[in-house]
Amino acid sequence: MIAKLKADCSLADKAAIIRHIEGQGLRVHVGDSGENPVVSIIGNPTAMLADELQRFAGVESVSLDAPSYPLVSLGSRPGPSVVKVGSVFIGGAPIVVMAGPCSVESAEQLEEVSIGVAAGGAVMLRGGAFKPRTSPYSFQGMGEDGLKLLRDAGDRTGLGVVSECVAPEDVALMADYVDMLQIGARNMQNFRLLSAVGEQPRPVLLKRGLMSTIDEFLLAAEYIMAAGNPRVVMCERGIRSFDTSTRSTLDISAVPVLKERTHLPVIVDPSHAAGRRSLVPSLALAGVAAGADGLLIEVHNNPEVALSDGPQSLTIDGFKETMDTVSQVATAIGRSVAKLSPPAILPPLAEGVPPIADRRGGWADPTNAV
Amino acid sequence: MIAKLKADCSLADKAAIIRHIEGQGLRVHVGDSGENPVVSIIGNPTAMLADELQRFAGVESVSLDAPSYPLVSLGSRPGPSVVKVGSVFIGGAPIVVMAGPCSVESAEQLEEVSIGVAAGGAVMLRGGAFKPRTSPYSFQGMGEDGLKLLRDAGDRTGLGVVSECVAPEDVALMADYVDMLQIGARNMQNFRLLSAVGEQPRPVLLKRGLMSTIDEFLLAAEYIMAAGNPRVVMCERGIRSFDTSTRSTLDISAVPVLKERTHLPVIVDPSHAAGRRSLVPSLALAGVAAGADGLLIEVHNNPEVALSDGPQSLTIDGFKETMDTVSQVATAIGRSVAKLSPPAILPPLAEGVPPIADRRGGWADPTNAV
Amino acid sequence: MIAKLKADCSLADKAAIIRHIEGQGLRVHVGDSGENPVVSIIGNPTAMLADELQRFAGVESVSLDAPSYPLVSLGSRPGPSVVKVGSVFIGGAPIVVMAGPCSVESAEQLEEVSIGVAAGGAVMLRGGAFKPRTSPYSFQGMGEDGLKLLRDAGDRTGLGVVSECVAPEDVALMADYVDMLQIGARNMQNFRLLSAVGEQPRPVLLKRGLMSTIDEFLLAAEYIMAAGNPRVVMCERGIRSFDTSTRSTLDISAVPVLKERTHLPVIVDPSHAAGRRSLVPSLALAGVAAGADGLLIEVHNNPEVALSDGPQSLTIDGFKETMDTVSQVATAIGRSVAKLSPPAILPPLAEGVPPIADRRGGWADPTNAV
Amino acid sequence: MIAKLKADCSLADKAAIIRHIEGQGLRVHVGDSGENPVVSIIGNPTAMLADELQRFAGVESVSLDAPSYPLVSLGSRPGPSVVKVGSVFIGGAPIVVMAGPCSVESAEQLEEVSIGVAAGGAVMLRGGAFKPRTSPYSFQGMGEDGLKLLRDAGDRTGLGVVSECVAPEDVALMADYVDMLQIGARNMQNFRLLSAVGEQPRPVLLKRGLMSTIDEFLLAAEYIMAAGNPRVVMCERGIRSFDTSTRSTLDISAVPVLKERTHLPVIVDPSHAAGRRSLVPSLALAGVAAGADGLLIEVHNNPEVALSDGPQSLTIDGFKETMDTVSQVATAIGRSVAKLSPPAILPPLAEGVPPIADRRGGWADPTNAV
Repeated sequence: MIAKLKADCSLADKAAIIRHIEGQGLRVHVGDSGENPVVSIIGNPTAMLADELQRFAGVESVSLDAPSYPLVSLGSRPGPSVVKVGSVFIGGAPIVVMAGPCSVESAEQLEEVSIGVAAGGAVMLRGGAFKPRTSPYSFQGMGEDGLKLLRDAGDRTGLGVVSECVAPEDVALMADYVDMLQIGARNMQNFRLLSAVGEQPRPVLLKRGLMSTIDEFLLAAEYIMAAGNPRVVMCERGIRSFDTSTRSTLDISAVPVLKERTHLPVIVDPSHAAGRRSLVPSLALAGVAAGADGLLIEVHNNPEVALSDGPQSLTIDGFKETMDTVSQVATAIGRSVAKLSPPAILPPLAEGVPPIADRRGGWADPTNAV
Repeated sequence: MIAKLKADCSLADKAAIIRHIEGQGLRVHVGDSGENPVVSIIGNPTAMLADELQRFAGVESVSLDAPSYPLVSLGSRPGPSVVKVGSVFIGGAPIVVMAGPCSVESAEQLEEVSIGVAAGGAVMLRGGAFKPRTSPYSFQGMGEDGLKLLRDAGDRTGLGVVSECVAPEDVALMADYVDMLQIGARNMQNFRLLSAVGEQPRPVLLKRGLMSTIDEFLLAAEYIMAAGNPRVVMCERGIRSFDTSTRSTLDISAVPVLKERTHLPVIVDPSHAAGRRSLVPSLALAGVAAGADGLLIEVHNNPEVALSDGPQSLTIDGFKETMDTVSQVATAIGRSVAKLSPPAILPPLAEGVPPIADRRGGWADPTNAV
Repeated sequence: MIAKLKADCSLADKAAIIRHIEGQGLRVHVGDSGENPVVSIIGNPTAMLADELQRFAGVESVSLDAPSYPLVSLGSRPGPSVVKVGSVFIGGAPIVVMAGPCSVESAEQLEEVSIGVAAGGAVMLRGGAFKPRTSPYSFQGMGEDGLKLLRDAGDRTGLGVVSECVAPEDVALMADYVDMLQIGARNMQNFRLLSAVGEQPRPVLLKRGLMSTIDEFLLAAEYIMAAGNPRVVMCERGIRSFDTSTRSTLDISAVPVLKERTHLPVIVDPSHAAGRRSLVPSLALAGVAAGADGLLIEVHNNPEVALSDGPQSLTIDGFKETMDTVSQVATAIGRSVAKLSPPAILPPLAEGVPPIADRRGGWADPTNAV
Repeated sequence: MIAKLKADCSLADKAAIIRHIEGQGLRVHVGDSGENPVVSIIGNPTAMLADELQRFAGVESVSLDAPSYPLVSLGSRPGPSVVKVGSVFIGGAPIVVMAGPCSVESAEQLEEVSIGVAAGGAVMLRGGAFKPRTSPYSFQGMGEDGLKLLRDAGDRTGLGVVSECVAPEDVALMADYVDMLQIGARNMQNFRLLSAVGEQPRPVLLKRGLMSTIDEFLLAAEYIMAAGNPRVVMCERGIRSFDTSTRSTLDISAVPVLKERTHLPVIVDPSHAAGRRSLVPSLALAGVAAGADGLLIEVHNNPEVALSDGPQSLTIDGFKETMDTVSQVATAIGRSVAKLSPPAILPPLAEGVPPIADRRGGWADPTNAV
């Protein structure tokens, strides 16, 4: 439920409205929709409350069927969000490409890959230090040593760093090293973990669960935002279907569907969906053409010996070739590919909406943050 | 199972090989793979047969694990097929766009839509005369009257005509009016119907069943080819998954996966997958970017009053806008959009492979047809 | 939409109501719900029609949201239907077991299996003469020769005979030989075939499509009933899901869900769902416990050499053992297993509803047929 | 990979074999298969290791393709496991029924429900204190207060207590109050949580993820066992499919499939699968008939006002009625329903396998524990 206030609603009227709602055990979120302040009621409001609110002086209209994810819903902001990760802006016209190995394996591996993907056109480096593996007997990742290698590679190449966080107790440690925390598909409904990354300021890359509907995906993002962190980027990475010709079924429609429902940026991971290298370029291009704000691509210097996900990793050369076409398709639809040195002025996709700023190691509360 | 013969295998040796296979109750298909003749064994050959064939003078190698759809498999031809429908070539570099209403409703409707889509860049007109509706109480189509309107509209605009055939007994009637017969998703495993369209020369547009794996889809195409008709175009139109945010889940990966397994052209139907207009442009662009050879798009002059599928039909203006971007994305990946007047020389996607020719009303058996 | 008439509605009033509805291009079906006549409106009635009908003298109430499958819906009859197949009654308290090979292969095979399953407790013999195979190169069935063998085996053992019909043009031929026509899962939405079996009097065993919702399944039954044949038995046989540990995923909930929506009998096919022998007994018992009115089980005298579906066929001994426990579970839930000589008086599951009678070779229109 | 040792393998030989395996960075688990000791190699052994082991004096045979879940696999024990939870034994012939509300709401609610389900035939009480809700704005459970109420209700009725644990940091707290820790479907691949419950001695009820394959489900159990806790009970609770007529699709085949792959007990949750009360009895009976070792059923004293899952909760009377038929079906298949006072002698399902003992508050390492 959302109450749209009058443009000239006084501060006293606004306070009375909020007090009334909170008196019923509900929470509120106050935002803007163009000229009008908007009060999102968080919780399960009754229809009677809607009636009551209609009678307040400052209320213009009440929308009972507003979505159950008020903070992430498109209507809660006047335009799409731009999430700042280090010096990278996600959600503007330039498409952000994150690339790197599934798992951090060694300093040599990471150096070769990070230099390769930076040269190829990526602006962020991905790599797993803690791996949530299905079998207890699989390689589980390098842990903090892996994080150090990632940070080092990021600093030397200028690439932003994103890595998966698998447990609440790891959040603080990871936030010391990486620019963006990734929530993996298997943890999309690990609500304690969602709250934990929501209570800190690092931007979050939220991957869709293999079994999750679009609304469940958005509600997971709402968990993070409700805990205080507005810097969420959604990532479609394939769902489970009856079809076994690919590892997962890339739900390409999720891109435009999400764009209709949320202001948050949406990126596509063609690698996990495909499960094998040969399909990755086609799916990457499809993602860009469908309107994705970025791509997350697995790249390995020597996929044959990768400790995990080798078959779906592009070679460094393969990545460069793919990026050439990605760039052309981006241009064809009026966008571009983000470059390592960010442009002085961010292209105005969401006019009038200042990008959400972030400072490494500190908490920035930008004036217009959701 | 496939036996590759020696490049210099004599006619007598070839005959002996085929006689031996047929003596075991199996059928053969003789094709070419570059310089070497290839004998595809159709049926369920034994491993012992493989051993026996190895010992024949003219046999170079036997591949036991060749696919169970020998005629449609990529290996059965030296390159991708080009299917000729009237004056349209599907499978070459130019992307073929088919557009029109879900159902033929009236002469006025069809005139307006056909002129509109021709102006917008389509080269084929789609429209249903016989509708396979889920409920016995829904509009079932105009029947032969609809076919006449389609033919007339096609003749006046120069657009090729494609329409769905729902029963074997309708094949002959439909072939009198349309340039291409469509097999709908619900009939993808109606094997009698597949054989019926396989026994006549009109090209066939085969839509993937909602529940069909890629291999079942290819086996359905094999039914048609095994009955004698090599002019098959595959159409991905969305599969059924747990996700209900779209009518079907467009399996965009099917495009590159099919391209890895078959020489047949592959097109994408964004309309049925999406189920609503606003998503169609994104999915159409994704299809082209992923490598589709064409698009099948529902367009209506007045979607609000359409007898079927109104919500997912583009308006004529919406179609034109979409085509502008489709054209740009096609260019970005080194292709183009097919125009109504076919170029004098077909772009050489599959070098050395003459396109499969077709004559309206007659059966053409091009020398190199599969 | 359904209009419930007053118990004392005069014939003149009833005629006026029906004339008014038909005047809007809709069809009607007049049935009974206890004391009140019920008029089902077939087609897509407008809300305005509901208003208009409310004002007719003979109308007691109008239910706008009545199901779109008026003939098969539970509300269209006062209780569950009993479908008579030869001397077998499906839908009463006794559970009907149909068993036999996937495909008819030879006289010897069929003799051994039919005697075995009759001794084991089956009352109907199943066997395929026309097989809808996924690959054009698989065994396609014995055709009419197979039907003759089935009829002969049925006559000698007293078992009723059911076999799959794959095309409208085969209906007449099949009706000469078998007691019940089966529509396979792949043809559940082959609407021409549904109409064809609906236009003749033989009872129809309708199998659920692999990716059909319950409502689509019921609408397929509606097609048959709308064409004139009320003798339809629904068969749950497994749906397609992401899980590959079984051939299909037996949707056991479909049994109670169907019982909530339709008066038609519901049986379960554990063999196709399981895909392998070892699971069949558990699924058969689950089906009975969940409320199924019958079972369809594949049994082969020598599964190792079966031309199709050998791995999922029970041996004759395995079938007998399974039937022992089936019988005990049936007793535990207050039912029994139907025996070859039908009891003189059918157990009164649907009190006051005379079973739908059938005569081999003729059309019986029982007074209370839906 | 599994190495079967000779029955008379000396201790010295056994030690040499284990040393060799561990020298390659792998772990071992030594168990028995009838007379022969069996060494399960945990990790990713090479084919070369298999060759090496063959040459050891004490090795009888090496099985390379043994499952990747050595501890839970059927072959790792001579028969099915019996898991002891307080005074309840799960996995023997008597079927264990756990019942109670979705969420603990108040002392009054819990008293009424616990007395009701105990009278109705349950031997364990279920109830959620920490709820993993999809929306951040839904009721999240009473927390520790709820646990206290559960413990109190369990002590007063004699019912064992099971409740869901949603985070590793809650494990110790929960183990103070409950007899069995439940891992919910959404956390089935929360590997940190699996390890945490595996490192303590309380038995674990592991629910299948909505889109988890049987093998992923078994690997999740392996995580728990690999961490040291052999007391795992598997719970099928429905998977996600395209069908929306029920909340989830109960995969009834999972019961016999799991029984073919693991020695662990398997129970069925008909409530979450069904999503509505009317279907629960049919699914409960189907579960028992299919071979489940127990049932987990939601029961509420006043479902209309339940804070969560009201629509799918049985009333106390409805539960009692269901239990009457459950008991009869159990008898029909040669089993019974477990009673609150456990029988002096446990029925010998797994002859010669002493049940896994447990002591509340302490860690028991039974001699024959897996």
